[in-house]
Amino acid sequence: MGEIPVLPVAPTRGRLRPLGLDEVRITGGFWARRRHTNATATLGHCRDWMERVGWTGNFRAAAQDRVHRERRGREFADSELYKLLEAMAWQSGDEGTLDTDIAALTEAVASAQEPDGYLNTAFGHTGQQPRYSDLEWGHELYCHGHLIQAGVAQARTGGEGELTKIARRAADHVCATFGRSGIQGVCGHPGIETALVELARMTGEQRYLDQAALFVDRRGHGTLADIEFGRAYYQDDIPVRRATVFRGHAVRALYLAAGAVDVAVETGDDDLLDAVVRQWEATVARRTYLTGGMGSHHRDESFGDDFVLPPDRAYSETCAGVASVMLSWRLLLATGEPRFADLAERTLFNVVATSPAQDGRAFFYANTLHRRRRGAVPATGAASPRAESSLRAPWFAVSCCPTNVARTLAQLPAYLATADDHGVQLHQYADAEIATSLKGGHRVALRIRTDYPSSGSVTVRIEQSSPRSPWTVSLRVPAWTAGATACLTDPDGTRRHVAPGTAEVTRSFRPGDEIRLDLPVRPRWIRPDPRIDAVRGTVAVQRGPLVYCAESVDLPDGHDVDVIRVDPSVAPEDGPEGAVVAAGQVTAYDGRRDEAWPYRPFDGAAAESTADRTGIVLVPYHSWANRGPSTVRVWLPTVEPDRPAPPNSAPTGR
Amino acid sequence: MGEIPVLPVAPTRGRLRPLGLDEVRITGGFWARRRHTNATATLGHCRDWMERVGWTGNFRAAAQDRVHRERRGREFADSELYKLLEAMAWQSGDEGTLDTDIAALTEAVASAQEPDGYLNTAFGHTGQQPRYSDLEWGHELYCHGHLIQAGVAQARTGGEGELTKIARRAADHVCATFGRSGIQGVCGHPGIETALVELARMTGEQRYLDQAALFVDRRGHGTLADIEFGRAYYQDDIPVRRATVFRGHAVRALYLAAGAVDVAVETGDDDLLDAVVRQWEATVARRTYLTGGMGSHHRDESFGDDFVLPPDRAYSETCAGVASVMLSWRLLLATGEPRFADLAERTLFNVVATSPAQDGRAFFYANTLHRRRRGAVPATGAASPRAESSLRAPWFAVSCCPTNVARTLAQLPAYLATADDHGVQLHQYADAEIATSLKGGHRVALRIRTDYPSSGSVTVRIEQSSPRSPWTVSLRVPAWTAGATACLTDPDGTRRHVAPGTAEVTRSFRPGDEIRLDLPVRPRWIRPDPRIDAVRGTVAVQRGPLVYCAESVDLPDGHDVDVIRVDPSVAPEDGPEGAVVAAGQVTAYDGRRDEAWPYRPFDGAAAESTADRTGIVLVPYHSWANRGPSTVRVWLPTVEPDRPAPPNSAPTGR
Repeated sequence: MGEIPVLPVAPTRGRLRPLGLDEVRITGGFWARRRHTNATATLGHCRDWMERVGWTGNFRAAAQDRVHRERRGREFADSELYKLLEAMAWQSGDEGTLDTDIAALTEAVASAQEPDGYLNTAFGHTGQQPRYSDLEWGHELYCHGHLIQAGVAQARTGGEGELTKIARRAADHVCATFGRSGIQGVCGHPGIETALVELARMTGEQRYLDQAALFVDRRGHGTLADIEFGRAYYQDDIPVRRATVFRGHAVRALYLAAGAVDVAVETGDDDLLDAVVRQWEATVARRTYLTGGMGSHHRDESFGDDFVLPPDRAYSETCAGVASVMLSWRLLLATGEPRFADLAERTLFNVVATSPAQDGRAFFYANTLHRRRRGAVPATGAASPRAESSLRAPWFAVSCCPTNVARTLAQLPAYLATADDHGVQLHQYADAEIATSLKGGHRVALRIRTDYPSSGSVTVRIEQSSPRSPWTVSLRVPAWTAGATACLTDPDGTRRHVAPGTAEVTRSFRPGDEIRLDLPVRPRWIRPDPRIDAVRGTVAVQRGPLVYCAESVDLPDGHDVDVIRVDPSVAPEDGPEGAVVAAGQVTAYDGRRDEAWPYRPFDGAAAESTADRTGIVLVPYHSWANRGPSTVRVWLPTVEPDRPAPPNSAPTGR
Repeated sequence: MGEIPVLPVAPTRGRLRPLGLDEVRITGGFWARRRHTNATATLGHCRDWMERVGWTGNFRAAAQDRVHRERRGREFADSELYKLLEAMAWQSGDEGTLDTDIAALTEAVASAQEPDGYLNTAFGHTGQQPRYSDLEWGHELYCHGHLIQAGVAQARTGGEGELTKIARRAADHVCATFGRSGIQGVCGHPGIETALVELARMTGEQRYLDQAALFVDRRGHGTLADIEFGRAYYQDDIPVRRATVFRGHAVRALYLAAGAVDVAVETGDDDLLDAVVRQWEATVARRTYLTGGMGSHHRDESFGDDFVLPPDRAYSETCAGVASVMLSWRLLLATGEPRFADLAERTLFNVVATSPAQDGRAFFYANTLHRRRRGAVPATGAASPRAESSLRAPWFAVSCCPTNVARTLAQLPAYLATADDHGVQLHQYADAEIATSLKGGHRVALRIRTDYPSSGSVTVRIEQSSPRSPWTVSLRVPAWTAGATACLTDPDGTRRHVAPGTAEVTRSFRPGDEIRLDLPVRPRWIRPDPRIDAVRGTVAVQRGPLVYCAESVDLPDGHDVDVIRVDPSVAPEDGPEGAVVAAGQVTAYDGRRDEAWPYRPFDGAAAESTADRTGIVLVPYHSWANRGPSTVRVWLPTVEPDRPAPPNSAPTGR
């Protein structure tokens, strides 16, 4: 391990020590394919779009003071360039050099920085509003945060360069302007907090941490205006320490929580950490979709009330998924508890992996769990509205998600494993190689072989270890194995059942030793809590960590997904090519289109449905909408009584 | 009947002739109480709030060219004054004179009118944007429309006065500016169309009708910008004639449809009328709540896709209810079909009557069918956000609903009955007196006695009739009677069953003759179409036209409504004071709060619920939230299997 760890999150304290991109390499399988597409398609795609829609040009126009007339994009467009630069930095190690791109973009950014470190193309130039005149919506601190993250990524991947210098100047400006005696405000969009803490970790400079702590403490006291969405929208309603659940705009809530964990860890503030854990618990128990997605409302991209989880209006923004993974990872490092890795896995496979198209050049912004109408193919030449993308779109008017997916996939190897004084912990399963030093400089190396999540079999081979030093390999046994049987086989061939949580093997390993984990990935029915009203009377299928869905392209006769009912008394089975087949029936409603009124009085008993049973093909949710316009649903109505009106009740009865 | 009928809608053609406020008087019961509150509380409440929040002052400020600095409220605030003036005009006949108020408000309005007839306090003055520079959001034609409606109301209630003159000048300005050779645009918010047609009907001037027809035909061709909500938001996506269902912003869609019906009727354009009827049919069959409410989405106050009718996120804006009644009434007059009166009745009792508080000084803007969290009491001194009112609020930042309710209640007697060459048609039931002239000047008078909808018994007594001229009394038999038994008793005592639709009695009536209609208002279970995913596994109760709900204040032990399950195999029964009692059970979920994850794998069979049965009290939906903060639900989960996870499945299993 070098002096500067190649890590997106590098706490100086906490239960677990993260392993960096120089210690973990993903060598094949699900995530390797996605990272390859990210490197070879998505990064260039984002670069080209930002040039085309003028967001890169904004920096050049700002440098020449013609930005008021020429600026393109929303007030936060600058941040997309920074996120792309961050993604390029993390990905540059393993997919050839991206130095030329990074240098060109950095030059544009550098040209627009003011002498005092301020950098934003939407404020403060001739004909624009003054700096910090709109903290509610201006996103200036948010943009500075992403700039700082990009600078940190550069320093940790290739060493400090021009971008890192720009970022430090920006951070110094923020501290000078928003310090204890400065503007007593916060940004309408959190994000600066995690960035400042990471810069403090990188530089060792306390003042960045102090500023982050100040921002966390200032929020929740109503310094921002009371907008129509309410101050909960930007978490300025209740101080972080006193809140009990995440609320308001989901990305804002989760970025803030991640920043609060960073501050809590660095300052040893257990009360603050506990407050975030409590909010995470309540949110996971009551405000999270089966996919791990968060955010129920389109109106303000926000969390709903407890158990308000409509599948058809699931906003489940891709960026909220990214933010949730960021938060879960920080909580895992701080506490060592596998439940945080459980949620991260669910969210990575079912939200983050769902967003990009197979070719890496189109994205979901919102990730609905139910779509009734086949969408139109988005325009390829123009940015799409964010919430209405019916198929993945190449770019959005608000295009935060593509670059957020890109930087997450670029960082992904860093989320697989950690170390502590006792050994190595495996949190996510992928074909990978791990090499690190344990306590006392003991070098260890592990080779992970698996095609998880297609298979549940994971083999861990010890490649390097000193035979005189016992240490522990810990493996997460996912919570989704509950009620089924997971097994661990020791290097000596001993096989035992393992319960959800953590399974450990401790010994003086020798190179060639193998541990084998067998996870039960057969498809299973899932029932929702009865308090989730929107999915009453339905079930879903999960196979390992993957949520499945019915997609109209797999149905006979051109039907849409409203015709499906499934029989949960028959177990779903594996089908060809990763599909699952469930017993069910297809009931075409087309003949009922002409009912005048969709509510019927009834006085009689329910009637059983009599349609013939058939096999319903289900596919992984992350793969949907890759075969043209379609309809989709995750939650499937069951073949329970259809309860038509009795014969004496007219069909038009109201 | 005078020269100018006292009517909100006075078509020159159509199947039925409306009866005006000078021909129909509501003398008691449900609507008389609400109209009295409207006259004695709501009108003054609206007047005082508009003075307090500065919307009346905007007109005075505009007259003195200081409006740019001083203007208050949103761009459409002017329209609230006009709607209040309209409401005062319609109500002035039966609740004492409102002349002083009308004169004072009219003076303010008059002072702000430009020499060319243009009138808007948000555009065109020093420091403001130019006139018609923002057709998408400026609402200038929308405001002119409400001004014209107020002027028409004045002319039809007290004779043409100052307000009518202002309105005619404004209409002339609109025709001069947006005529065939004028600006080729439409307003982002329809509303001018109905107003211009009504002015044409009042004045006999064709050019107002031509202009309305032009606006209807121009829409749907993309002259407005393609905003993030899409052009469907303001119905500029598809021409009215080619559309198949209402879509986009619900109030905009329904006002436009009402205007299209007006144009179609006056110009004899059956194709246009048929197009609107087709859209109404599709919308009622697939996009309407049980309450008659329309609009599923908070994000853009819009219709959802077919069968997207979430009860908890029902927007069901009060103004959309008002607009739906306006449209249904026009379609009823044009076609004579009782289905339009059916929907109007449902919407009046369950949306329009739900909005105002019992004291007429607070209102619902959105009318949700399910609320899980007890709301806070809205501030009495400040305007509330429109969508988040948890209890009725006295005023809103966007306060379209209070004045819209006020003008609808003021007009209400005009929606009860019509006439044609053959007789009189009763569409809505209330204690009332009707007097009109039939063909050949035959004077007839009817006395309606009922306490509908508490009781289903309606007695129609003939008070005046010539014994030599046979004529017909037609009575709507509501569609909600389907599957139950409705009876009609003739003046000679003959009793017969009548089916949903229209029941008729034709004879040479003599004064003292009585017809009696007995409608089966016993409470009944209602099941939703299985395609309405959001209410699967639930039932509702309707009693006559009234939708019922469970409200937490009626539950034992301080429970909220998430604890209720009902047993639809037992018929609901009448309870005390208008309540209904349903068999069901109460299952407290509080002990389950700590489940880590709300989705469980399961492999076993379902288990029956075993909680004790109890009586669940339900109250009319329109009456909810009058007893302090509460939770509510219309759709009630049934006591079907609760399906807990089998014993071998850990409660935290994911």
